[in-house]
Amino acid sequence: MREWGVHMTETEEDIIRTGMEEIKRTSEVFGDDAGAFRLEGRWVVITNDMFVQSTDMIPEMNFQDAGFKAVTANVSDLVAMGSKPAYFGFSIGLPESDADRARLCFRGISEAMDFYGMKLISADTNSANELIIDGIAVGMAEKLLLRKNAKVGEVVCVTGDLGRSLSALLISLKGLEADEKMKKKLFEKILKPRARIEVVDGLSKISNCAIDVSDGLAKELRAISKASGCRIVVDVENIPVSEEVREFCELNSLDPAEIAMNSGEEYEIVFTTSKDALDGVEFDFTVIGEVTKGEGVWMRTDSELKRIRDLSWRHFSDKWVI
Amino acid sequence: MREWGVHMTETEEDIIRTGMEEIKRTSEVFGDDAGAFRLEGRWVVITNDMFVQSTDMIPEMNFQDAGFKAVTANVSDLVAMGSKPAYFGFSIGLPESDADRARLCFRGISEAMDFYGMKLISADTNSANELIIDGIAVGMAEKLLLRKNAKVGEVVCVTGDLGRSLSALLISLKGLEADEKMKKKLFEKILKPRARIEVVDGLSKISNCAIDVSDGLAKELRAISKASGCRIVVDVENIPVSEEVREFCELNSLDPAEIAMNSGEEYEIVFTTSKDALDGVEFDFTVIGEVTKGEGVWMRTDSELKRIRDLSWRHFSDKWVI
Repeated sequence: MREWGVHMTETEEDIIRTGMEEIKRTSEVFGDDAGAFRLEGRWVVITNDMFVQSTDMIPEMNFQDAGFKAVTANVSDLVAMGSKPAYFGFSIGLPESDADRARLCFRGISEAMDFYGMKLISADTNSANELIIDGIAVGMAEKLLLRKNAKVGEVVCVTGDLGRSLSALLISLKGLEADEKMKKKLFEKILKPRARIEVVDGLSKISNCAIDVSDGLAKELRAISKASGCRIVVDVENIPVSEEVREFCELNSLDPAEIAMNSGEEYEIVFTTSKDALDGVEFDFTVIGEVTKGEGVWMRTDSELKRIRDLSWRHFSDKWVI
Repeated sequence: MREWGVHMTETEEDIIRTGMEEIKRTSEVFGDDAGAFRLEGRWVVITNDMFVQSTDMIPEMNFQDAGFKAVTANVSDLVAMGSKPAYFGFSIGLPESDADRARLCFRGISEAMDFYGMKLISADTNSANELIIDGIAVGMAEKLLLRKNAKVGEVVCVTGDLGRSLSALLISLKGLEADEKMKKKLFEKILKPRARIEVVDGLSKISNCAIDVSDGLAKELRAISKASGCRIVVDVENIPVSEEVREFCELNSLDPAEIAMNSGEEYEIVFTTSKDALDGVEFDFTVIGEVTKGEGVWMRTDSELKRIRDLSWRHFSDKWVI
């Protein structure tokens, strides 16, 4: 689920790349936030996401939140494809004798399915050395929002605010400072994130390109830039950062923009649209930049325009050894 | 994936039952071999199955076979629903630095997808303490074959032969005796099982009720009996058992019928059909019994008719402490 530096060594990324190259046959749409196939004039969108206790669960998280979050991560991918959640499936692996935790986990999954309006379609359980939840989400769409559809001249927008998830992670795993009030708001985003299902209808009307922030804004924008063959220019001062993140960064001498650009598991939606369409948007969002000719992701301030080097996200992870 | 006694304690089954009771909303078809929803006159069938190294992998199995088998387990569920495999998705959890094993695993998955004619629709990777493969299979069907559709007067049939998988397991985990020739045939079934995709078309023409043998014939027949509200009577001498299983049982003073009834991960298909339809069946199968009024699963020999008590499968597992 999370892809912080320490979990994905170069070698491991190589394995995955090599491994995936062995698989030649893919669905009509594959490798975006989710895969999809067309059936009788409609898109059936399918995604899966594995939550692993030793990798994805910080000490502050309880098993009910873990269950809910396993659903959220999958639903967020459906939203980013422009599809509405319909069905959920899961496999749970858990150590024997862990009855109470297992019950909490099921409860979290059930709550989330109610919240997102999904029906259960398949479930499997197994014994494992640690808690594993592999979630599967199925959605329907009339039109797909794809990473490759960004167009020169469009603006780049994002829902909500960014940075709280990484801030909480730095407090939890690296012991960075924060007062109780800050902590409450910061941890809320990493413990109880909610996928942006409320934007699907409005988004599909005004956009053809979206991605969800699961690995950090920098990485998501690079995915759009690469898939669409364009340059993304981000106005640093426009990146939506909450008051708590600003205070946390000041307290720990961090750059809020860097935190916001590299914060994963935010489950906000990044999308592109024409300037003309902005007036008609039915949900809250922030314009953070534009799509231009060229390549790569660039950060613009009053004084400079700087390309984010391809490893900035990894660099950041390495620096903090998360 | 496998559900031998030691992995599913009473408590754990309780957890699952209680947990699942929390989930009220299910798809039109749920809880059979796979779930399904109807879309524009067709059934979209979805199943998932988690393969866990510490639970499902015997020492004789390599990682390529593990990858293939993770696909097979899912495809077998699709076949049992009367659906044709179309798309596959998976999550892989693996320990870092396990590059060679991971590659083999991907290769096995890829081979299986080719073998079953499936396209990849979604994939996720994560770090975990052991190898975890959660497979998701999507199939299409005009008509569903359901456990609840067995009818009094029908005959009960099964494809292939039964018992090799459990025999191999007893050799591997309990050190039971076998010569090399026997071992070769017995281990073939547990290491390289193949789902019966060749029967889907023919099966849909003559049956409305099927289940795959993933947990053992006794358990599968109980599922049909319970869901259909009928009695299943099995003629013990008709259960298809290979020469190798008979020899293995003789060598170790075991009852071949008991082995065949309790052997899981066979991926053979059990189905019911009318006697009249038998002549038209286009694939190999064996008639093993009949559906009558009443309840439960009964074993019939020349000299006796005996009900399999509800815990016979568990009893067997306990006896062998598998």
